[in-house]
This record gives sequence, C-alpha cells and structure tokens, in this order.
Amino acid sequence: MTQFAGDSYLDNESSLAASVLSGNRLALGRLLTQIENDLPAGRQALMELYHRTGGAHLVGVTGAPGTGKSSLVNQLARLYRQPTDGSEPKKVGIIAVDPSSPFTGGALLGDRVRMRDLAGDPGVFIRSMASRGSLGGLAAATAGLVDALDAAGYEVILIETVGAGQGEVDIVRLAHTTLVVEAPGLGDEIQAIKAGILEIADVLVINKADMPGVENTERALRSMLELAHPAPRVYLHHGQTERITPMAEKRDLAAQPWHPPLLRTVATQCSGISELVDNIELHRRYLRQSGEWELRVQVRLKSQLDNLLQSALVARWRKNVSNQRYTSVLSMLVEREISPWQAVESLLDGELQ
Amino acid sequence: MTQFAGDSYLDNESSLAASVLSGNRLALGRLLTQIENDLPAGRQALMELYHRTGGAHLVGVTGAPGTGKSSLVNQLARLYRQPTDGSEPKKVGIIAVDPSSPFTGGALLGDRVRMRDLAGDPGVFIRSMASRGSLGGLAAATAGLVDALDAAGYEVILIETVGAGQGEVDIVRLAHTTLVVEAPGLGDEIQAIKAGILEIADVLVINKADMPGVENTERALRSMLELAHPAPRVYLHHGQTERITPMAEKRDLAAQPWHPPLLRTVATQCSGISELVDNIELHRRYLRQSGEWELRVQVRLKSQLDNLLQSALVARWRKNVSNQRYTSVLSMLVEREISPWQAVESLLDGELQ
Repeated sequence: MTQFAGDSYLDNESSLAASVLSGNRLALGRLLTQIENDLPAGRQALMELYHRTGGAHLVGVTGAPGTGKSSLVNQLARLYRQPTDGSEPKKVGIIAVDPSSPFTGGALLGDRVRMRDLAGDPGVFIRSMASRGSLGGLAAATAGLVDALDAAGYEVILIETVGAGQGEVDIVRLAHTTLVVEAPGLGDEIQAIKAGILEIADVLVINKADMPGVENTERALRSMLELAHPAPRVYLHHGQTERITPMAEKRDLAAQPWHPPLLRTVATQCSGISELVDNIELHRRYLRQSGEWELRVQVRLKSQLDNLLQSALVARWRKNVSNQRYTSVLSMLVEREISPWQAVESLLDGELQ
Repeated sequence: MTQFAGDSYLDNESSLAASVLSGNRLALGRLLTQIENDLPAGRQALMELYHRTGGAHLVGVTGAPGTGKSSLVNQLARLYRQPTDGSEPKKVGIIAVDPSSPFTGGALLGDRVRMRDLAGDPGVFIRSMASRGSLGGLAAATAGLVDALDAAGYEVILIETVGAGQGEVDIVRLAHTTLVVEAPGLGDEIQAIKAGILEIADVLVINKADMPGVENTERALRSMLELAHPAPRVYLHHGQTERITPMAEKRDLAAQPWHPPLLRTVATQCSGISELVDNIELHRRYLRQSGEWELRVQVRLKSQLDNLLQSALVARWRKNVSNQRYTSVLSMLVEREISPWQAVESLLDGELQ
C-alpha cells in the first residue's frame, strides 16, 4: 500500500486521535479532511475524541455579503491571540463555511488572505469549507469540524457563514454565541431581511462603521431591536417548533435577560474589536450563569443527532431497495402516471407494484 | 362542525381538486395553503391533480438582495399578460420563496406591493412563502405549489428566491429556466459569490442598469461567463454528483449548445423586459429541441422524490421509537458519554443499550 510522505508521522489509523490530542497540526488537518469527506477513519477518530469535546466557546459570525465578516473574524482571532487586557492568549479555531459556491467549491480566496495575517501562529487553526451536496450534509460536516477543533483544545471557535438564509441559520445554530454583522448602505431590501436575522443575534455588529450612512443603519437596527419582543427564543428544526423555556432552577436569579448589544467596528483599522471581544465574553458568562449554555448545547446536539439519523435512515433504506425498482418508480413519476407521494408509498410499502 | 363562510363553495373535501380545475381561485388558494402546511387534504387533492401537471414553463428567478428581483418578476408577469408582439396572453403564477425570515415568517410585504400592480387580473396568481422549518421542507412545499398552479393551467410559473446559497439553488432547481439577477455596484465580495451562481444561470440579467457602474458589472460578468467551461451541467443532490450527459439520440442536431445571454433591464421603467421575455422563450424552445427539457424534468422529479422519501423514512422511524428511549440516548450524548454516531447506532440497531 502506497503512503503519502505526509502520512509517515502516523503509525496507523488508530493513532490519528492520539496525534490530534498531542497537538500535531498535520494530524488535525488530516482529520478535518476525513470529516469533511465523511470517511470512516474520520468518524472513528471523532468517536475516540468525543469525550474531550465541550470545552470550547463556539461563536457564529453571519451577515450579508459585503459586510466584511472575514476581516472581522481575522481581527477577532488576532485579538484573542494578543489580548490587550493582560489576559492569557486563547487558542482560536476558524471555520469559514461558504454555501454560496455549491458548484465550484470556492471559499479558497478568504483562506489565503487570512493565512497571510495569521500564518505561523500555532495557536490558530483555519479551515474553509465550501458547500458540497446538501445543506444537511454541510451542517453535519461543520459540526464534526467543530468537535475536532474542540477536542484538540481550541478554546474559541469562530464559525463564519455567508448570508442570511435558512441554511446559514442551521449552521449558526451550532454556536453558543451568534454575531450578526451589518454594514451601512446595503439598501432597503436588505433591511427587510434583517428583521429575520436579528432574532438570532446575540451581539449585533455594524462593521465598516466609517462609511457614510452608519447613523441611519444604527437607527434602523435599534428600532428593529426594540420591536423584537423579549419572548423566549424559538428554535425550528425538521418542521417542528420547540419553545425553549428557561430552566428556572438553573438560573442565577441575579442574571438579567440578555439584550443584544449593538457595536460599531472598522475591522480593517482594528477599531472596536476589543469591545467586541469583551461583549462576546460577557455573553459567554451570561450563558453560563443563566443556565442557557446547557440549553443551547442540548438543542444543538439534538439537531445534530436528528440530522445524522436522517442520513442513516436513508442510507439503510437504499441498501435494501434495488436500483431497478427505484428507476421504474421514477419513470412512472416522470410519465405522471403516479404522483410523488404515490411513488414514495410504492417504494416504502411495495404497494402499487 | 363549524365551517368558514369562505368554505361554502365546497361540498366536501373531495371536490377541492375539481374546483381547482374549474378555475375557482378561492379553491386554488385554499389548496396552496393546505400544501404549504402539508395537510392530508392538500396531498390528496394534489394526487388527483397530478396527471394534469407538466404543461407549465417553470422559470426560476434568483439573485442577491437589492437586485430588484421582485420588480422584475412583476414586470415579467405584466408583459406575459399584455404581450407587445401580438401573441396570446399567458396565465402567470408567481411563487415568491423567502428563506431569509426563518423565524418571523416574513415575505408579506412583497406580496402586497405586487397585489397593487397585478390585482384583479384573473390570469395571475401570486403566492408568497416564508421559510418554515427545514429547507428540505421548503423545497418540498414549493414543488407542491408549483404542481398545483401547473395543474390549474398557469402556463408560466415564476419562482422567485432571495439569495445565492445552497438553499436557493435547491429551490431554483425546480425550474426549467433559471434567471440570475445582478445589479451594478454591489461590492467585491459579491463578485466572488457570482462565480458560483453563474453556473446555474440560463439567462443573466443586470437589473437597475441605469445605475452607475453598470459597465464594470457587465465586463466582470462577461469575463466570468467566458471562464465558465462549457462542460455538461453538474447537479448535486444528497451529496452525490450526477453528471447529466446530453442524450444524443434526443438532440436536434441543428441545435447549438446554449450560451447564457446577458441582458440589461430597468424593471422600474419596464426597460428591457420584452427582450427578457423573448430570451426566456428562446430558452424554452432550446430545451424542447435539444431534449434537455426531459432531462431537467427527470432530475427535478428525482430530487423531489428523494426529499419526500427522506421525510417519510424519518416519520416512519419516529413512530416506532419511544420518546423515552430517544431522550435517554440524547442525554448520554449531552453528557459526552457517547458520540453522535454512537447515538445513531444505538437508536437504529438497539446496540449499546
């Protein structure tokens, strides 16, 4: 069996998890690739590593294209590495998910731009991932990457996604703390979109705050924030609505409900970044004290479990149905002899055949 | 049993399909609501109607927020209703899918704006749909709405989606012809995104073409179009890559491969719209002559079938597993006693228990 030169640091597959835990970056990179491609070896290593997860603070960063999210994530990582308040540097993982290039598999440019800034720092690990196949697969792969970085000891994991659609929300839902990034002057249609995305914001950032129109943007966002009712957060998954009610017994009674702060930054000039880091840390403490941390973890793991269950059920079913049968039902559907639901009934129960 | 006054036109549920076929708009509206909410009555009616589908030309319209898609769709509908070339007016259905408001269920404003323009025309039917639950559910519901309008005799169905992510691509995949809408001056980051979305474009539109920067936008798009290889279209679904090779035997040898035209429009001034309608019609004829129409229909129905199969498999499994068992596995996962894959194995095979 041929081995790549880069694989020589591994005696065999079973030591991958151990290598990752020992801080081997090559092993970590290899594990991430295996997870992204959903290979058995990656799954096996993640199983071995899983009990080491749960320590990282997962921070989602989302917003429309053009708001400067990548620069902001860059600057956040830099500040976590070189704190100005005398605190210890934190190890930072960055996962940039780009669902906008489903066909070409893009997301490489941002990677290279970042590498220049943060290259050579062993306390930073960066991974870009373009959408492959379904969004469900993307969310599952992202969750796996997060777990691997978490187990490998990265203390803050920044998960960056483009856009404001459902898919991005699915990915952001992985996070404990969600940053929504806006920028001045992106037009009226975007304003309408903000109303939806605002509801998932734990911290609101107006980046590019040196651009004209920042006052208008801030005013609009503030009024939208005020309109948003302080109702319990509603998570949607698989068509069900789950209302997450605070567990009163776990709550620190001194803790106030969280009101998303609105901050201005100019990432390219590193302006406002340390205030942003402070607010992310405040939110982490709020989650810990209020008991909401555990609630969010539970919602996240349930969502992850349901996603994997779904894939496993489909895979198991496919093994038991012949291609011929599937193709013949599909033909009847194409000829409009049966409707899609009748096709499903036929495939699942053997009726109509 | 209480009946709403608006329901009195129906004798019973079984006549819903018949009422829709007879052109009853109230019945159609009610059917669309039932489909959107995935109710059994809607499914039943769609089964009865399904053999009447397949006649409509499905046109997807996508692009970033701020490009003026809604105005463009408006103007397209108007021109289909009042053709300037002496052809017969066509019945137009509009489905506006807004995956950007997963929490509030938005998408109502656009509806009302449109109503003002096209209200009272019995040849136009408009439906807005906000994202509820998963994107898979959204795509399935959209497919159902399309089928209902198709069966009801709407000849052109415009499916409008916001954004350029995977979710939007899933929805656009429903269409025979895909319009990608751009606008001048949306910034560099958006340029990078275009590279991905361009690959699904059958017709490229620069709307708001009276704005400064239109020359730059057109130049950038043209060079991106040239870069795009004339390779066979690749559809992605459920993590699989399917290469659609043209069926040579079905191809009209005289037909040339389709090169996406690039058009300028100013929807608010109704400028360039009739050229756009002409190009949409050209593409329809190309699809018909080349045999690609059937290929696209097949890919679309396979995707729809796989989506429904997935939901049905999950629903069937859920019926057979106790809540208690599910909850206990989830708890072990939250405590990191088992990994997500071990949780799935445990739930599917009864192992580890």
